[in-house]
Amino acid sequence: MKIVLDCHGGDNCPQAAVDGALAALERLPELELTLCGIEREIQTCLNGRAYDRDRLRILPAQDWISNEDSPTLAIRRKKTSSMVVALNSVAAGDADGIVSSGNTGALLAGAQLLVGRLPGVTRACLAPVMPTLEDGRDVVMVDGGANVDCRPDTYLEFAIMGDAFMRSVYGIASPRIGLLSNGAEAEKGNEATKLAHALLRESGLNFVGNVEARYVMNGVCDVLVTDGWAGNMALKSAEGMAHNLFEMMRRNIERGGLRAKLGYWLLRPALRSVKRRMSSDEIGGGAFLGVRGVVVKAHGASGAQAFCNAILSAHKLARGYVVQRIAEGLSASRRVCADTERA
Amino acid sequence: MKIVLDCHGGDNCPQAAVDGALAALERLPELELTLCGIEREIQTCLNGRAYDRDRLRILPAQDWISNEDSPTLAIRRKKTSSMVVALNSVAAGDADGIVSSGNTGALLAGAQLLVGRLPGVTRACLAPVMPTLEDGRDVVMVDGGANVDCRPDTYLEFAIMGDAFMRSVYGIASPRIGLLSNGAEAEKGNEATKLAHALLRESGLNFVGNVEARYVMNGVCDVLVTDGWAGNMALKSAEGMAHNLFEMMRRNIERGGLRAKLGYWLLRPALRSVKRRMSSDEIGGGAFLGVRGVVVKAHGASGAQAFCNAILSAHKLARGYVVQRIAEGLSASRRVCADTERA
Repeated sequence: MKIVLDCHGGDNCPQAAVDGALAALERLPELELTLCGIEREIQTCLNGRAYDRDRLRILPAQDWISNEDSPTLAIRRKKTSSMVVALNSVAAGDADGIVSSGNTGALLAGAQLLVGRLPGVTRACLAPVMPTLEDGRDVVMVDGGANVDCRPDTYLEFAIMGDAFMRSVYGIASPRIGLLSNGAEAEKGNEATKLAHALLRESGLNFVGNVEARYVMNGVCDVLVTDGWAGNMALKSAEGMAHNLFEMMRRNIERGGLRAKLGYWLLRPALRSVKRRMSSDEIGGGAFLGVRGVVVKAHGASGAQAFCNAILSAHKLARGYVVQRIAEGLSASRRVCADTERA
Repeated sequence: MKIVLDCHGGDNCPQAAVDGALAALERLPELELTLCGIEREIQTCLNGRAYDRDRLRILPAQDWISNEDSPTLAIRRKKTSSMVVALNSVAAGDADGIVSSGNTGALLAGAQLLVGRLPGVTRACLAPVMPTLEDGRDVVMVDGGANVDCRPDTYLEFAIMGDAFMRSVYGIASPRIGLLSNGAEAEKGNEATKLAHALLRESGLNFVGNVEARYVMNGVCDVLVTDGWAGNMALKSAEGMAHNLFEMMRRNIERGGLRAKLGYWLLRPALRSVKRRMSSDEIGGGAFLGVRGVVVKAHGASGAQAFCNAILSAHKLARGYVVQRIAEGLSASRRVCADTERA
């Protein structure tokens, strides 16, 4: 399984990308990695490090896309940037997937323009995975932020992609599909969501109905369908709350004197395991679904651990044939629609 | 200052409502309360309790509106329900405000139908207050869930109401107005939000630009403008995350043996103060803004403490003349618009 890593564009690049790559190679003996970026800089990061040279190669690029670049323009014009060169290697079939911590909009545009959408996909979506209260159970959000205004049938596309993701990556036979809404009842929602609800009910998927933002992380569904607007709000707000709670605790422990500090020391293993489960470093980036290859976006602030996790996650997606499963799901859905129309 | 309390419709009613009322009377010597509900049931809750009889009276009702009732139908048909009787006493000027933990939709519909909207208000909104990382600094969200599909100019109305709320209740001279979006840059947002951004920039309010859901509770603005759809997502998702984090900690402490239990005991004061700041009991319900009286919605699950806080909050709104300040704000905005059109 071959993954190409865009070594530029993130806050801690290229060092964190290279460190993450070496860690991933140690974890997975069958993994082959291509580091795409400015060769001299990557070589500097690799200097003196031990790694399996048969499984790591460098794909040279001349420059890179920054967060200030306009996404579509950058993809069209910066043809020798690490992101474009890496995406082209996926498009050419030289790699099964790509991991990048660079400009999210550019990666989304580039994935669609250079790697291309699967037949029947009108919008590719971002699919971040969130932890739930149930140990080992995660929920994938489709769309987690790529498309802010969606038509009702786009929600159905997202649901099919999320379903394929959960079947192929998590091995769940019949993923429970929930629709993010402001109430559990079918008649709750904004206009687009109410229409999407009706489409999902008729879809043949294991649709469990509306899910309120309050209960998303309680393990009530495996796939949470939403547009990238409400999805972004739910995701980022939860992230902010988690961050703020830990920050408030830290401040209160500091103010709490010796008693609180001793308490914290005793409680640290228990608190750390909660923090680890909720940390985006541990989750390791979201995939873009709907394109003809595995595309994983790592956070812009990714450290080595986050890069390693994103690479492992890309590997898991490629090994689970998620792209093929999505293509099959969309094609089956088109057949159902055609049959319904004929009937 | 007179507040009427709808004693039915919540999970712990009428006992929690009555207990909350008695607690509020003790806290505020100038407060007068009317308990609206089924007299016999309220009397049972009051039996044997000591309170100032000059400041507490009962307003009898025959029945009440449940969460299963259809909001507008219930308001129109259940004319002797505690919610309708209480709302009518506000409309008649017998009370300055109402607190209810009943059916949210019915309260919103009833507030608009019976108490009436202020001139220039097309949509009343729910205005929950959220804590921030900065001690003593809160942020009010308008709209926190009442209107799921909004036109761009409705966001401006919400902003004016939130501005008046923060000036009159918190005494902030020039509240910082933020617009909830998926990025800080002006060009980020869905179609409606981008148009709202342009209106807010021209509004004369202290508009600080887009605010991402991740940073809402970091104290970057005093008023967060959004529609009830994105607002509900951000609010409920943060609530869910806070609840789940505390629940995961509880489980890990249980599993962590003696060491973790001792640590928890030592750390309890510090953790409790975080939990209290984040608890909806402490925040005490959201107000409906845009109607001709103070209307405060307490959570359906409110206990005595939450009812007491909601009553204190209604009192604060009435004392700050929030209704008058909103009316003035809207009328000033209409003058600006008229001047701009003439110019």
